[in-house]
This record gives sequence, C-alpha cells and structure tokens, in this order.
Amino acid sequence: VPGRAEVEAASARLGELVVRTPVIDCPAFDARAGASLLLKCENLQRGGAFKARGAQHAVGRLVPGVRARGIVTYSSGNHAQAVALAARRFGCRADVFMPVDAPAIKREAVERLGARVELVGTTSTERRAAACAFAARTGAAIIEPFDDPDIIAGQGTATLELLEQAGPLDALLVPVGGGGLVAGACLACEGTSTAVYTVEPAGCDAMARSLAAGRRVVVDPGPTLADGLKPSQVGERNFEIARARVAGSFTVTDDELAGAMLALLLDAKLLVEPSGAAALAVALRGELPGSPQRVGVILSGGNVAPERVGGVLAAAHRA
Amino acid sequence: VPGRAEVEAASARLGELVVRTPVIDCPAFDARAGASLLLKCENLQRGGAFKARGAQHAVGRLVPGVRARGIVTYSSGNHAQAVALAARRFGCRADVFMPVDAPAIKREAVERLGARVELVGTTSTERRAAACAFAARTGAAIIEPFDDPDIIAGQGTATLELLEQAGPLDALLVPVGGGGLVAGACLACEGTSTAVYTVEPAGCDAMARSLAAGRRVVVDPGPTLADGLKPSQVGERNFEIARARVAGSFTVTDDELAGAMLALLLDAKLLVEPSGAAALAVALRGELPGSPQRVGVILSGGNVAPERVGGVLAAAHRA
Repeated sequence: VPGRAEVEAASARLGELVVRTPVIDCPAFDARAGASLLLKCENLQRGGAFKARGAQHAVGRLVPGVRARGIVTYSSGNHAQAVALAARRFGCRADVFMPVDAPAIKREAVERLGARVELVGTTSTERRAAACAFAARTGAAIIEPFDDPDIIAGQGTATLELLEQAGPLDALLVPVGGGGLVAGACLACEGTSTAVYTVEPAGCDAMARSLAAGRRVVVDPGPTLADGLKPSQVGERNFEIARARVAGSFTVTDDELAGAMLALLLDAKLLVEPSGAAALAVALRGELPGSPQRVGVILSGGNVAPERVGGVLAAAHRA
Repeated sequence: VPGRAEVEAASARLGELVVRTPVIDCPAFDARAGASLLLKCENLQRGGAFKARGAQHAVGRLVPGVRARGIVTYSSGNHAQAVALAARRFGCRADVFMPVDAPAIKREAVERLGARVELVGTTSTERRAAACAFAARTGAAIIEPFDDPDIIAGQGTATLELLEQAGPLDALLVPVGGGGLVAGACLACEGTSTAVYTVEPAGCDAMARSLAAGRRVVVDPGPTLADGLKPSQVGERNFEIARARVAGSFTVTDDELAGAMLALLLDAKLLVEPSGAAALAVALRGELPGSPQRVGVILSGGNVAPERVGGVLAAAHRA
C-alpha cells in the first residue's frame, strides 16, 4: 500500500526538475472564507500546472533503454505539456493524443516543446485507446495521466510542499479530474489531521459519485469551463486511495469558476485557469464542515487562452 | 549617510507587517533575455505593491502621540493605498490627496481601507501642496511618498529580500517614479557587485535626466501607460543616493510596457500593472551592458483596472 513515504521519495528524486512553488495568502479571500486560506500556486509550476510533477517523476523512473523507444500519452492538455517537457529533459521522443476540442493554447504549447500531437475524439476513452494502439505498434512507453503509482506520488509532492511551507492544515481542497492530484494529496496527508476534500465541476463529478456509490462510476461529463476536469471515469488506484482518506466532496458551477478566476486575477494578481480555480471557489463559500481555520487550496494550473481571460473580465465589467 | 544597515533595521522592524514576496523565474523570459531573470513579485505584496514596505515602516516609526493626530499623504495610487493600510494597522486617521486622473481601482481601494480621499490636480506638486496645507491646519503627520529616510529604507527591504532569496546578482533593474524603490535598492546593494539600473517611461525620465545633468531636473511628464511612474521630479535624497550608485538608465515605450504585461500574464501567470512591468520590458531586450548572467527584476505592483487588462489582451489577440 503506497503512503507518505512514496511521496517523500518522489520529492527527493524530482529535486530541481520541478519548481517549489510559492504558497500565498490573500486577506480579501480570508474575509470571504472566514478562514486562513493557504494557496499553493501550481499555476507557477513549469509548464503552468502541477502535472510537471508526475510526468517528470514517471519519465525519470523509466529504464533508459525503455525511454529510448519513446513515450506516448493522452491528455486534454496540461499532462500533455508536462510529458512533452519531460521528454525534452530526458532527450526522448514523445507522441501525444489530445481531444479535438483541446484549447489551442494547450495544443500549441505541446508542439512548441517538440512533441508530436494527434487529435482523437473528445473522450479520454477514445484517446487512451489510440495511445495504447500506438504503444503496441511502436514499443513506446505509456505515461498514464493519473492512474499510475509514479504519477500519483509525483503529484503528491505539491501537497507535501504545501504542508512543509504552510504548517499543519485543518482542511485541504483539491480539484479532481482523473484523481492524480487528490490521490497524491491523500498520501501526503497520511499521519496528519488534515481533512481532504475533492472539488469537481457540476455534471463532471465522477469522483463524488464514485465515492458515494462505493465503486467507480462512469459519467457522461457535461459542458464545463474547467476543460481539465472532465474525464468520464477516475482512475482505479486514485479511487481506492481517495476512498480510504477523502472527507467529503463538492461541485462548483461555471459561474463560481469564473468568479474565482476573476478574484484570483484582481485580488491575488494570479492568472489561474478555470480548473485551477475550482478549489478556491468552494473555499470562498465559507461553508466547510466544522469551520476549519487553516485551509489549504491547490491552484492547480494557469494555462488559459487570452480570449477566455478577456471574456471573464468583460463579464465582470458588465456586472 | 544611510546604507545597508538602515535597510536591515527596517526589515527587522517590519517583520510580519509585510509579505516576504516570492522570487520566481520563467524559462520563456530567460530565453528572450539571454540571462537568468529573477523576478521579485511585489505585485503579491499587501496592497498589491512594494509601497506597503515604506508606508508601514514610516507610520510605525511615528511617536504614538504624533500618530494619534492622524496622517496625511499624496500619491497617484499605490502609496495612497499603502498608507491607508498602515493607518488601519496602527489605528489612526488617514487623509489622502490623489490626482483627478488616478485610476478608479486605486482610489476605491484607498476608500475601502477607510481613508478619506480628496482629488487635487494632476501633478505631484499640486497634491503635495494640498497635503502640506492640510497638515499645517490639522497637525497630521505627512507620510512622504518617496523623499524620506524611513520610506527609502522600507522600500529597500524588497531588494534586501531578493538578494537573500536569489543569491548574488550581476544586475538589478528597478522601475523609477519618485525614486524610493531605487534608492532603497542602492542601499541594499551596498557592499555587493550588483549593477543597479533605473527604468522609466519614455517622456517621464526625470531620474535619467537628473543623473545625466548631475542635478535634479524638473520634467513635464508625457502620457504613459505607467501611471505610477510620472512625478515631475525625483526626490532629493533619492537622487543623491542614486547618483552615488546607479550604473545606468533606460526608458521604455507604452508598446514595450503592454508587451511585458502580456508576457507576464500569459507566460508567468502574474498580473502586473504597466509600471510594474517596466523593468522586465528592459530585461527582455537582452541588451544590458556587459551581458550580466543573473539579473534581478523588480515587479513593483499589480494594481490594474480590469478594462485595461482586457485592452492589452484584445490588442494581443489582434496581433
């Protein structure tokens, strides 16, 4: 059974390959939340998202002879960019299967890093099948986006650092797509009294429904601003780890995501993508069970197209 | 003669009153600059700008009986907000004279903090006269925006921290309005081999012209995006300190300011106001004398109206 030790080992292996991102606070947020919010700025991570942690860790753990045959992955965006970065770092070829509706800014960033991008369907099931077929044909190693021990341990380093930087937390809010970040958070929080909560877009709450059902549920993800948080199913390992540790689950609306994004920009001076603002959106409600005083909030990424930022600002200006 | 010891003393006095802001780097910037840029994020400071350092320090240094008669200041924006914050912290009344063309976002922030705002003219000379008359009438203590030893020592703590966080720097780029930040930087760099450079908007280069003339020159500041960097004259103490230490001066155009702001937003995920992006605009040219390898860049503030951000984004979208 993996635990905090795996996250600590990942942190030691990663060393300078990832950024020890800052933790900031913002008095305007604390006033709204009725708590001290400690914001872990993974939007300031290499590649603009926490995904660099898992990808650098997993690619670094491959045997060099295996890595030389190339790596392949599938992703809606940020994991793709992180794998492309890791491939460049370790000097191997990378092929990436992305959905046809991936934001152009994320696709272009992957190509700029030297990876080959192929667009396939709109669901994680479709792009995973394409990546597996490619791996079978070429011998490339698959770098899973979330359901993998090395990925989970790597993503857990974000929470490990947060606990080191901020001290003990009563609660921690984590955005959930496939569940890599939250599974890592659960491992990192082992032995602490931190209550870990999941946050998903309304209509894309595969983790919340799975936790409620006691087994992994397949959902048909509805439309959401949070393009990074809409897999049809969470990972198996991710679910098992979350089931043993998660204290509760929340969903957020597009209006709340846009509001949190805008507050981050104007009050905290940080550009955060909609998926990355999900945890703050819940914190700002000020309704966490038991009124925790010190609340960790993971800002998971900052890769957002300029026109979307403009749209959010324009909406604020009209309001 | 003030020196590094005054800045160290200010840092010890300030303690938790200001944020030890993070220093970040950004590979995309380093590639353009041909150097390692270390970005000191004063946009993440309390009140959204480095001005909190000097204001908290100067207000804290007042004798309590003096402070009880109230404080008064004059400013185009960020110093006003910082003084309002300090007044709230120390429980005294604050009156602030701002120009009629101050951005609404800055004026409203001052009022939200509980200070009284009065709009006077468009030049620092006009608002200074109004503040002095008010002080004479009421007995309030004037908190100077830049030409004051306690303000200079306070602003110097930004550079002191940067040197502690980033290690030795070959060069440091500092935006200059009245000269508080750069004078503090000069003091903090005492005893190091860091070359300190000033950055001003084209047409608002009171410091560069004064350094060239060997005496303080009055300018008629032209229009600029950088509303925080347009006093008609730098401070006397600021000039004397800069004259003894500054290695060179640069000016930047509005196009460069907008470009640097946009790069900070999209590549570094940071919202920085035009004045705050001035030093980066120079760094990105990659033309510093002697090709320094480790270059400090002070991002001095992040208080910018949503509609201006929208304008910069829209321009980028058209480009």
